[in-house]
Amino acid sequence: MISDELKTLIHLLSKLPGLGPRSGKRVALHLLQNRTTTLPALTESLQIVSAKVKNCTTCGNLDSQNPCALCTDPRRDRSLICVVESVADLWALERTASYKGQYHVLGGVLSALDGVGPEDLGFSALFNRCRAGTVTEIIMALNATVEGQTTSHYLAERLKEIGIQHISSLARGVPVGGELDYLDEGTISAALLSRRDV
Amino acid sequence: MISDELKTLIHLLSKLPGLGPRSGKRVALHLLQNRTTTLPALTESLQIVSAKVKNCTTCGNLDSQNPCALCTDPRRDRSLICVVESVADLWALERTASYKGQYHVLGGVLSALDGVGPEDLGFSALFNRCRAGTVTEIIMALNATVEGQTTSHYLAERLKEIGIQHISSLARGVPVGGELDYLDEGTISAALLSRRDV
Repeated sequence: MISDELKTLIHLLSKLPGLGPRSGKRVALHLLQNRTTTLPALTESLQIVSAKVKNCTTCGNLDSQNPCALCTDPRRDRSLICVVESVADLWALERTASYKGQYHVLGGVLSALDGVGPEDLGFSALFNRCRAGTVTEIIMALNATVEGQTTSHYLAERLKEIGIQHISSLARGVPVGGELDYLDEGTISAALLSRRDV
Repeated sequence: MISDELKTLIHLLSKLPGLGPRSGKRVALHLLQNRTTTLPALTESLQIVSAKVKNCTTCGNLDSQNPCALCTDPRRDRSLICVVESVADLWALERTASYKGQYHVLGGVLSALDGVGPEDLGFSALFNRCRAGTVTEIIMALNATVEGQTTSHYLAERLKEIGIQHISSLARGVPVGGELDYLDEGTISAALLSRRDV
């Protein structure tokens, strides 16, 4: 009863993250109900983004200029590179407004299960940036998952080999507003180990 | 830190039903990560749907042909019209595969708060279909909300005036799998009033 064109659109929408078959239908109907406003605006925006927004060839960030605004910003510290898994993680760090160095987006993490090896990620680009000589510290800000930490260890070893002495990672501990009773043992152990003098 | 083009896309995505600022960002990043597959497929599908899928001028259903496939299907009973609020409701009824008449999509319900009056909805198109003479029964399948029921009563009065004798509405009662303890008083009262001999 639903026409093939509409079925295709619903199928594509329902495969987007956070959407399913039911919400795909809702979005498709919403777009058709707003066929003179939202629908053309979204189509045009998708075309513009597809044409203009590219990954920065230096750091992997998404921007309409290459190198990206973060790489070209003269106020940002070029001796510091923060390694993140994805652009979403870069945005999360930027939201804090407490980091003023450069970034490097890997675009994924090592995963034997998914067949992702070192050659699939932007490692060599990172090594080239480090060999240029301006970098003095690398901050590992990969997710605290098994794959993230494996990647972090692997990268740290390789970075030491090419002469980067100072490699750090985000602190582990009790999150702001966290209650001990609801935290896992690993986090509490890490917070105990890294305890600080008051 | 996010480029203007990308901000526009995230804004448009975050206004879609079921999405918000955070899921809008996720969808935008997902589309850019799949810029050679999902992104062009979605853009093309939106363009095709925008160009081809229109509201049927007879019943208001969405289809790539006009009159729509339901209106032109010779196996469907032309003496029966089921009045629904939206195309989503039409799809919900079609999923049951237990109705073989025609439909009429109002595209909304009467609402004094939102300023929706009888002239804003497809009432006159429905009256014209009824005046053609083949219709013997109208089934009111509007949502069981205050606005839906107000619209239902208003339409029933007008339809009687133009000579439709048989006007019915969906039964009220205990839903399949429903437990009395969790049902509201209104539903239980309606189920008691409409009780049936076993």
